[in-house]
Amino acid sequence: MSVVVVGSVAFDNITSPSGSVENVLGGSGAFFALAASYFTNVRVVAVVGEDFTAEHEKVLTERGIDTRGIEHAKGKTFRWGGHYQENLNEAKTDFTELNVFESFQPHIPEEYLDSEFLFLGNIHPALQAAVRLEMDKVRLTGGDTMNYWINSARQELLETLRLVNVLLINDAEAKMIAGDASLPRAARKILAMGPQALVTKHGEYGATIFFREGAFGIGSHPFRAPALPIEEVKDPTGAGDSFAGGFMGYIASQGTLNREVLKRALFYGGVMGSFTVERFGTERLQQLSRAEIDARFQVFRELTHLD
Amino acid sequence: MSVVVVGSVAFDNITSPSGSVENVLGGSGAFFALAASYFTNVRVVAVVGEDFTAEHEKVLTERGIDTRGIEHAKGKTFRWGGHYQENLNEAKTDFTELNVFESFQPHIPEEYLDSEFLFLGNIHPALQAAVRLEMDKVRLTGGDTMNYWINSARQELLETLRLVNVLLINDAEAKMIAGDASLPRAARKILAMGPQALVTKHGEYGATIFFREGAFGIGSHPFRAPALPIEEVKDPTGAGDSFAGGFMGYIASQGTLNREVLKRALFYGGVMGSFTVERFGTERLQQLSRAEIDARFQVFRELTHLD
Repeated sequence: MSVVVVGSVAFDNITSPSGSVENVLGGSGAFFALAASYFTNVRVVAVVGEDFTAEHEKVLTERGIDTRGIEHAKGKTFRWGGHYQENLNEAKTDFTELNVFESFQPHIPEEYLDSEFLFLGNIHPALQAAVRLEMDKVRLTGGDTMNYWINSARQELLETLRLVNVLLINDAEAKMIAGDASLPRAARKILAMGPQALVTKHGEYGATIFFREGAFGIGSHPFRAPALPIEEVKDPTGAGDSFAGGFMGYIASQGTLNREVLKRALFYGGVMGSFTVERFGTERLQQLSRAEIDARFQVFRELTHLD
Repeated sequence: MSVVVVGSVAFDNITSPSGSVENVLGGSGAFFALAASYFTNVRVVAVVGEDFTAEHEKVLTERGIDTRGIEHAKGKTFRWGGHYQENLNEAKTDFTELNVFESFQPHIPEEYLDSEFLFLGNIHPALQAAVRLEMDKVRLTGGDTMNYWINSARQELLETLRLVNVLLINDAEAKMIAGDASLPRAARKILAMGPQALVTKHGEYGATIFFREGAFGIGSHPFRAPALPIEEVKDPTGAGDSFAGGFMGYIASQGTLNREVLKRALFYGGVMGSFTVERFGTERLQQLSRAEIDARFQVFRELTHLD
């Protein structure tokens, strides 16, 4: 099964206590696509500028990723610079140059229209909704958003939430959308807004999936997956998008939609995030094997399972 | 098997978004003892004042807790007042009256000296060490501490850490002791200071146990237990001490010391903490049944286990 991702492709400058890199491939679409590519066919919808070369595109196509939906526009690719201090949980932005991303209008190639899985990366909620409505065959839509849209485009975001089956956001975003400081209560409120499931990401503490009563099976019990305790996190950039890629990629690879699949997907999300942070940018995601991924899945299991 | 706890018994005034209570039973020793009492024999070493009545003591003795080590001193019992705002993770202290606790010199009754399990609650590290050295038969010592001792009595704390088998603290305390912002790295450094295992508590995200290479079995993989997502946390006071009580109580009930026992103990710690926060003070801990505890243990398992 194929998964389509709509998101950003970017060049990043990143500084962390482990070092510095410049102009490395980044963006939510790139991290997602690379992570998901170890599980299923991935199709990207994004926009890049003239500085995005065949060499850059090869990073994606070598992983079998379909890049026909990457529009090449006049101008420069989206650029972001940020740094992390001792507390690696928080990125400080040094600069953001939207460039060609500023007027991004996602265009879905006809060849993508038979896709059954869709991930709406963090773009304007009205664009997210438009993409979803264009894709008739989609069985499961995952979505991301951020504080900027929650504050500045709330009405459009609420419309989009009705079209999203699984929302993947962090704790602070969930509390902000719901206007509630209790995460389980915020989750219940968000599930009443549309999504059948909500994944909230807790950074170094893993993630929790909350199910709407009866969605994807019986009951309403949440499920938690850990994150891996890693001694040296080199660069947390893209961990959340890699999580989403592992999560959605695994689901698309299974085809069936039930709680057991979504729980395992939560583990695979954590696994892919744990690889990403071991190196700068997408470096680690470019050179994995499925055997390494499954070995780490076992580590995640041992980290949490009794007996 | 019996577990001895040395800690505080207090009266608390607490305000949270769910309400207010005054003069309720509290203190690390009381929470620990009540939580552990569902698993094993518990013996308390503490000090109280003249305002601590037979009625108060009955709360403990009704749970079969041995209170012969509770010294009744002239003066008033330790009193603490605090409040929680929307973010329930952090208590703001309104007042602290140490009273009889200020000059607390733990005295271990002779009848306690055959105990094989010991928990050193959060008191001056030199007092913790003295208690440990008095108790010849102890096979496993658990210990707690806090930022105040880490800063003001570091040398004594380092001495005490050599006598502690399992240190139970929160993430911030672990990072402070080790002087390292990475939790896994801080854990490794602390395990080199003495303890064979370190339990770091992550509040609403559960807890992780790190093992020194080869301690309690093979390998050095950590293990994570969740916390229960609870919609209305009424009062987080004592959750950490209840965690320690469930953890140590379960270990003492098993007798054998291996990783599987310690992992399950981590789950039981989370279970007891999850009950405590449902009501103010020790109220919930006074009226539990082992069946309720084991049912919640199953919920914790379902929250984390695949298949």
